[in-house]
Amino acid sequence: MNPDALHELLSQIRDGQVPVEEALERLARLPFRDLGHTVVDHHRALRKGFPEVVFGEYKTAEQITAIVSELASAGQNVLVTRVDPPKAEEVMGRVPSLSHEPLARCLVLRQHAPDARGAGPIAIVTAGTSDLPVAHEAALVVQLAGDEVVMVTDVGVAGVHRLFHRLDDLRRAAVVIVAAGMEGALPSVVGGLVAAPIIAVPTSVGYGAAFGGVAALLGMLTSCSSGVTVVNIDNGFGAGYAAVLMNRTGARK
Amino acid sequence: MNPDALHELLSQIRDGQVPVEEALERLARLPFRDLGHTVVDHHRALRKGFPEVVFGEYKTAEQITAIVSELASAGQNVLVTRVDPPKAEEVMGRVPSLSHEPLARCLVLRQHAPDARGAGPIAIVTAGTSDLPVAHEAALVVQLAGDEVVMVTDVGVAGVHRLFHRLDDLRRAAVVIVAAGMEGALPSVVGGLVAAPIIAVPTSVGYGAAFGGVAALLGMLTSCSSGVTVVNIDNGFGAGYAAVLMNRTGARK
Amino acid sequence: MNPDALHELLSQIRDGQVPVEEALERLARLPFRDLGHTVVDHHRALRKGFPEVVFGEYKTAEQITAIVSELASAGQNVLVTRVDPPKAEEVMGRVPSLSHEPLARCLVLRQHAPDARGAGPIAIVTAGTSDLPVAHEAALVVQLAGDEVVMVTDVGVAGVHRLFHRLDDLRRAAVVIVAAGMEGALPSVVGGLVAAPIIAVPTSVGYGAAFGGVAALLGMLTSCSSGVTVVNIDNGFGAGYAAVLMNRTGARK
Amino acid sequence: MNPDALHELLSQIRDGQVPVEEALERLARLPFRDLGHTVVDHHRALRKGFPEVVFGEYKTAEQITAIVSELASAGQNVLVTRVDPPKAEEVMGRVPSLSHEPLARCLVLRQHAPDARGAGPIAIVTAGTSDLPVAHEAALVVQLAGDEVVMVTDVGVAGVHRLFHRLDDLRRAAVVIVAAGMEGALPSVVGGLVAAPIIAVPTSVGYGAAFGGVAALLGMLTSCSSGVTVVNIDNGFGAGYAAVLMNRTGARK
Amino acid sequence: MNPDALHELLSQIRDGQVPVEEALERLARLPFRDLGHTVVDHHRALRKGFPEVVFGEYKTAEQITAIVSELASAGQNVLVTRVDPPKAEEVMGRVPSLSHEPLARCLVLRQHAPDARGAGPIAIVTAGTSDLPVAHEAALVVQLAGDEVVMVTDVGVAGVHRLFHRLDDLRRAAVVIVAAGMEGALPSVVGGLVAAPIIAVPTSVGYGAAFGGVAALLGMLTSCSSGVTVVNIDNGFGAGYAAVLMNRTGARK
Amino acid sequence: MNPDALHELLSQIRDGQVPVEEALERLARLPFRDLGHTVVDHHRALRKGFPEVVFGEYKTAEQITAIVSELASAGQNVLVTRVDPPKAEEVMGRVPSLSHEPLARCLVLRQHAPDARGAGPIAIVTAGTSDLPVAHEAALVVQLAGDEVVMVTDVGVAGVHRLFHRLDDLRRAAVVIVAAGMEGALPSVVGGLVAAPIIAVPTSVGYGAAFGGVAALLGMLTSCSSGVTVVNIDNGFGAGYAAVLMNRTGARK
Amino acid sequence: MNPDALHELLSQIRDGQVPVEEALERLARLPFRDLGHTVVDHHRALRKGFPEVVFGEYKTAEQITAIVSELASAGQNVLVTRVDPPKAEEVMGRVPSLSHEPLARCLVLRQHAPDARGAGPIAIVTAGTSDLPVAHEAALVVQLAGDEVVMVTDVGVAGVHRLFHRLDDLRRAAVVIVAAGMEGALPSVVGGLVAAPIIAVPTSVGYGAAFGGVAALLGMLTSCSSGVTVVNIDNGFGAGYAAVLMNRTGARK
Amino acid sequence: MNPDALHELLSQIRDGQVPVEEALERLARLPFRDLGHTVVDHHRALRKGFPEVVFGEYKTAEQITAIVSELASAGQNVLVTRVDPPKAEEVMGRVPSLSHEPLARCLVLRQHAPDARGAGPIAIVTAGTSDLPVAHEAALVVQLAGDEVVMVTDVGVAGVHRLFHRLDDLRRAAVVIVAAGMEGALPSVVGGLVAAPIIAVPTSVGYGAAFGGVAALLGMLTSCSSGVTVVNIDNGFGAGYAAVLMNRTGARK
Repeated sequence: MNPDALHELLSQIRDGQVPVEEALERLARLPFRDLGHTVVDHHRALRKGFPEVVFGEYKTAEQITAIVSELASAGQNVLVTRVDPPKAEEVMGRVPSLSHEPLARCLVLRQHAPDARGAGPIAIVTAGTSDLPVAHEAALVVQLAGDEVVMVTDVGVAGVHRLFHRLDDLRRAAVVIVAAGMEGALPSVVGGLVAAPIIAVPTSVGYGAAFGGVAALLGMLTSCSSGVTVVNIDNGFGAGYAAVLMNRTGARK
Repeated sequence: MNPDALHELLSQIRDGQVPVEEALERLARLPFRDLGHTVVDHHRALRKGFPEVVFGEYKTAEQITAIVSELASAGQNVLVTRVDPPKAEEVMGRVPSLSHEPLARCLVLRQHAPDARGAGPIAIVTAGTSDLPVAHEAALVVQLAGDEVVMVTDVGVAGVHRLFHRLDDLRRAAVVIVAAGMEGALPSVVGGLVAAPIIAVPTSVGYGAAFGGVAALLGMLTSCSSGVTVVNIDNGFGAGYAAVLMNRTGARK
Repeated sequence: MNPDALHELLSQIRDGQVPVEEALERLARLPFRDLGHTVVDHHRALRKGFPEVVFGEYKTAEQITAIVSELASAGQNVLVTRVDPPKAEEVMGRVPSLSHEPLARCLVLRQHAPDARGAGPIAIVTAGTSDLPVAHEAALVVQLAGDEVVMVTDVGVAGVHRLFHRLDDLRRAAVVIVAAGMEGALPSVVGGLVAAPIIAVPTSVGYGAAFGGVAALLGMLTSCSSGVTVVNIDNGFGAGYAAVLMNRTGARK
Repeated sequence: MNPDALHELLSQIRDGQVPVEEALERLARLPFRDLGHTVVDHHRALRKGFPEVVFGEYKTAEQITAIVSELASAGQNVLVTRVDPPKAEEVMGRVPSLSHEPLARCLVLRQHAPDARGAGPIAIVTAGTSDLPVAHEAALVVQLAGDEVVMVTDVGVAGVHRLFHRLDDLRRAAVVIVAAGMEGALPSVVGGLVAAPIIAVPTSVGYGAAFGGVAALLGMLTSCSSGVTVVNIDNGFGAGYAAVLMNRTGARK
Repeated sequence: MNPDALHELLSQIRDGQVPVEEALERLARLPFRDLGHTVVDHHRALRKGFPEVVFGEYKTAEQITAIVSELASAGQNVLVTRVDPPKAEEVMGRVPSLSHEPLARCLVLRQHAPDARGAGPIAIVTAGTSDLPVAHEAALVVQLAGDEVVMVTDVGVAGVHRLFHRLDDLRRAAVVIVAAGMEGALPSVVGGLVAAPIIAVPTSVGYGAAFGGVAALLGMLTSCSSGVTVVNIDNGFGAGYAAVLMNRTGARK
Repeated sequence: MNPDALHELLSQIRDGQVPVEEALERLARLPFRDLGHTVVDHHRALRKGFPEVVFGEYKTAEQITAIVSELASAGQNVLVTRVDPPKAEEVMGRVPSLSHEPLARCLVLRQHAPDARGAGPIAIVTAGTSDLPVAHEAALVVQLAGDEVVMVTDVGVAGVHRLFHRLDDLRRAAVVIVAAGMEGALPSVVGGLVAAPIIAVPTSVGYGAAFGGVAALLGMLTSCSSGVTVVNIDNGFGAGYAAVLMNRTGARK
Repeated sequence: MNPDALHELLSQIRDGQVPVEEALERLARLPFRDLGHTVVDHHRALRKGFPEVVFGEYKTAEQITAIVSELASAGQNVLVTRVDPPKAEEVMGRVPSLSHEPLARCLVLRQHAPDARGAGPIAIVTAGTSDLPVAHEAALVVQLAGDEVVMVTDVGVAGVHRLFHRLDDLRRAAVVIVAAGMEGALPSVVGGLVAAPIIAVPTSVGYGAAFGGVAALLGMLTSCSSGVTVVNIDNGFGAGYAAVLMNRTGARK
Repeated sequence: MNPDALHELLSQIRDGQVPVEEALERLARLPFRDLGHTVVDHHRALRKGFPEVVFGEYKTAEQITAIVSELASAGQNVLVTRVDPPKAEEVMGRVPSLSHEPLARCLVLRQHAPDARGAGPIAIVTAGTSDLPVAHEAALVVQLAGDEVVMVTDVGVAGVHRLFHRLDDLRRAAVVIVAAGMEGALPSVVGGLVAAPIIAVPTSVGYGAAFGGVAALLGMLTSCSSGVTVVNIDNGFGAGYAAVLMNRTGARK
């Protein structure tokens, strides 16, 4: 039941063509989705300035092309994450208006400017150079939402003085994303230095007892610093998205 | 080196009593902490309206009493988490101005009103009644920070219609905390319904393959909903604290 | 919005007191739950002949008493699972019409006969005597639904001839529940002998590498026999409930 | 000892050629299998309308060819699961009557119509498009057994309204299979909406803390919805097979 | 169908009272167990000289009493493992002929001498004093089977010279059991020194990364010494039983 | 210090050329190995009839060639395990007297007949055809030691009647090796049927919750059948070697 | 064979009473231990200045009393670790010369001064007050070896400025022990600041995803700082002992 | 703020150009790093004689080239670890002064002699030939620091006499590194024989329950020998680096 159909039903009730009891029965099992789907999606775009996001890892180039084409025709911005170079090549051959961001492993279609309503810049901090792909994925999401990104890279805890050097950058951020592999200790240190909410992203960087990001994940979950919340291993997109939401809790009123 | 000592040193430089080279040497290894400690702590109180928080689980009644007494004499609000009834009894016998919040398993000392600067109410959602202690711990932290709490309890996914009934409450929240044990699916469903950042708290409720909260933790980390970040199992305090920070990203400017 | 309120709204539309557009807006966010909740619950009772089930493990005697009292006043059958003897004692002191089933660790209130619509008997098989509490919990659920239980106990794979002795009982069952701890191999063997769907229940019986039921759980999930599905460790209730549903797939038409 | 040999022995007893005591000794260790094997297999085919199923993953094209040829000559329907395209190619070159189902990754030989005795349609629900291969494997098994399949795809919990839109389809199913990766929350939500038994299939879709399907598996095992049973990760075949058995518990009488 | 019933059936065939075809049908589903059960059990006692063994951990004193009484009346030796002192006390109050072995945590009823047919002594080696309960349980099983036990205690690898001191004892053993906790390295070292089969028993001795015996278990499973096989954590009974079987492979001919 | 050097030292003591005190000092730190090494190795060959065994997986073709050449020149039988076809090809090009056993993934050099001293045949049982490589590796070890192998393949628990058909073969074995993947239940069933020691070999056959052999490993370790000991996942060599040792406990006297 | 017996044997060779060949045979299997045991133990005491150490956790008061008494009579210093207060009470009632160190949970017998040969002080750093018992156990071991301890407590990474305040103390240490629970990040930060070897001790402090010290353990093993080595969870004794060895690598020459 | 800037500020204070209060404010947030960074790095080179170390695994040839070039121009020694042959080839084509160490999988640039200040030789012990790459990585680090390496290879515990043969080499080492896979038992045995600190390196050698080095890691962490500390799986570099630090605890005074 789409909005038109619902409108029709309500009109029929009003006009006495459908008795209240029957309408009650039908509405009790109202297909919430059709109506909701369209409304929610439009709300989302209006409210968040977010592009539509397609998770590209498990999709074929054909599937991505079909989805992107449909979204493109609606005039929306589109972000496709986790696209490796050959797949990116293939999709771009079919949808030439897409641009490829190799560092972030994403495809992007920009059709209109985002409505930047974030409270302040979002700092994206990495422990080492190997964490950069995850950081770039997060940065792209933030930028597409229209928020300012401050990159603070290679400031891992083994040389904690490097972090202090960037303290001003960290302290003026409204939200801080910290990506780190191995022992994942950086969010704890950052959490002791700034008052902004911190989103910790464990990365799969490391070997042996790093267990593909598990050591970093556990370290971040058990962080002794307050204000740290955690997303899935290597989930740069999720961190960026959550940061944008946090950055406009004041703007939603 | 405390602030007074630093002031003294700087004055001595100004007065020529200490040569620049010697001061350079001493400042190069500046005991950042003493100065920072006091300053940061005062900043924290001013900026966040947060009470001092003491993690009570591993501390004896004597230790808690000593810490609380010191903080109390400084006029601060104090929150002691994870205090079981006998320990609470013992500490309250020594510091009568404390009050006990049995549902949240906390001791609280309120000496002044918080400065409520949150952007909006913080919704705390639970899947079942067994998640209530964690939810109450989170709620207490939020209330002590001066933010409004909206409790939405017992709306687990096995009866998802219960959740829809509270949709208005969820949608007006600036930040949503969702506590759930067992399969921990509730944050995913809530995440599809609201635009606020969601803090998922896995609880240790369940048995067998729940593995003391691990099933819920993994479910929340791999949530297919965007905007969900996660804290440690049963970490109501951490969820509440992070929610308060998220609730004032706009206020920090 | 409860059913009455919905009825009122629809009547107002019909009477022209509420314009279609406004009703559309309100219905778009229809509180699905209130209506659904009552309907669904009543449907459930009618359709399945199931009592209301309360998971007692994390609830206090006070909470259980309150819930049971409310359900009792509505004339329903009630089952409370995972109640240890002292808690059972306490609740029964307040709701004397309850009976205690110590083997199944349950409290039961029988107020009316179930509508037995199962296709055939449900066999409940255990590998050893230590699996009996789980089996009895399952059996109680099946009996409360009005289906016939056939108990086949202590027929573990180390003495597989014991199982063959009961083959007739197994083969006449419409659904077979198999509870086993340690290596959990019994469902595989049973699965090779009967054509009924098999519900495997790993139990926490065992030590060392049994890991509290994990060995049995993994064994059952990787069973080389077809037709075996699995529930959580020690989840006798879940096995019994699922068996009853399976037993009336033909009756639901 | 095959059936003929058993017949011979019994005839010899009747004719007095073998004394009762000697026969007793020999029968006490009766090679149950030979007799049973043939009987059971024929029973299975008659009773369930199931084709013979060959697990193709660990078998060479030669082995699969040999098995399929033997079964084909007996006039049976045959299903070979988990066959990748090159292996399928190779086997089909040798047994041209086979057809390849690439979505389900299966080879199929249809020699006679199944005897459709299921009580009702079997709904196969997926959380996302990445779960489709598992769903198609299940669907193929169901169809080969002669039961009706209703596919309900891409209705994951992050957009729960999509699921409500298909509620009628779900509610008319006799059995529901739900395949989901990542947090695996969908069976819990479906379980709260329908009265049919639900078979949950965790899929290996996801990354990081999804641990190749473990997060979904644990979530499904600890589901707070009743009536949910679980099969192994990615086990579409097992889900389909179990669903068919559940669908004819009434028909077996 | 018990042996008498089978005898009856065979006699009826012989007498022409039951046709061969009908007998064939009935025998095809022969209740293998009743006949087999008695025979196998008697065979076991005769062949192995083993007492009946009751796993006492999950059984109540009442259940143990009932089982022991029945076995006692049949003149058998009986071993009950994993009985804590209060339970032992209670059972012995009812079956006074039992003796308690506190070091091995067992109850024993000796009614006849075992038939000692082992090829040689069985050495039981422990890494430390904490492994003694497991070693004593194994020793009791071996002694009840009539085989000779050689105890070699406290010879862990941190002082490997202690082991060499007992080399003669090790080398004259037909089978060697090695119980060790923590890193569980002792079986590897012993395996390099003797030619007998070695049964490694990981014990739950240790803390932290010992994970209740898992470290020792993994170490023993991955032992670089040949001839080492492993039993469950703390499974002294299983090690002793397997050692006795290995000790009479030559005697079984 | 080699045997000659030791002989020399002892002669010097005897001849008074080295004082007792000095000899005491030198002997206290006796290089046990040189003497021991040669002696032990020769003892091993004499005592066990075993070939030298080289673990080929981590060694280059060059390394294997060098080791095999040295052993070959000493007239010994040699077994190289875990050699993939290209590496086998390369080594055989350099040591043409080697033969390749593709099913067992081994290289073999036979230079003399083994001294068959096993008490009886060794049965090697597999649950399915996928377990064959592991079974063949075990079989090759047993045959090289001169013991008889009885293969009993494809008798998994899902069709337990197949196992009974081979009961005579199982019961005449002195030792039984059982290789099984997935739920690994076969050793438990075999253990209830025979009196010989059973060596369980979990295989990495399976997917999902099989976790590369872990499900089978745990199932075997927690087997409810007595007399079952376990080796590492896929360790056919270790099972065969241990079986041979068990098969001659009587012969070592 | 003890030293006297060896002396005797050598004398007999010298005197021609035992032929060289026979001596060769006997010495080839020299009971290395008896001689070695005494020598090694005396060497250890002389070389390391270490007391004898008894792991008290799994030992009864009787066993501890017996061991301590024997060591006491030999004039040695003795340390008994992991003794809870009641057990300590009981042992001290029998060996009054022992003193109890409740913070370190140890019993100590000091009979002579250690020979302090450490290169410098050993810093023992804790992240929080809950790590103190482990730190005190380590400190006691260091002090009993005669080395200087510098305690640096409560300097966890959430307030990293506290650590800098103690930098001088850290930098003058020859070896640094760092005990931390939860995310265990402190060793990484310390490792970036000092040039001494660092021994990281994960503690079991924390809850939820701390998994009893596992999160800290993994974090320490995957530390991005060089020079960090790790001991078992809560192993204060092992850390102290290793630190003492490291502190005298220069002294051993 | 670099040292010059700090000098300037202090001069301005002295000259009265900057008031004390303003300086206090600026110094309170002193950018510790710039000053510290340069100082610390130079200190490190001077103090340890270590080359700069680059972790090559996650870096591209371009990145490695850039880093090495910069370090080379500063006259430093450089070590790049975990470089596979093609990447090594590529980097060496651009920086010809580099040499490749294939066994250690490293690139090395030697521009000046290390200052050998180690107290004694460092023994590097391996259990088997498969552990050699890890051992060679450790050896290279030790040699670049100017310390002496003693290699003791292939002395695993299954033939413990091989180890005794090298006892003199082990006992003269100031520090001992032990690399072992599978059960990882060698450090325990070595720890009982020598008084030097032992660094245990688990390697990923093994299969099945070795779990890629986890079995060895757990074994080493729970070693019953004192003086053993552990590094990450396959972390040869970390072991070598820590050994060098331990080797000069006496030299740092």
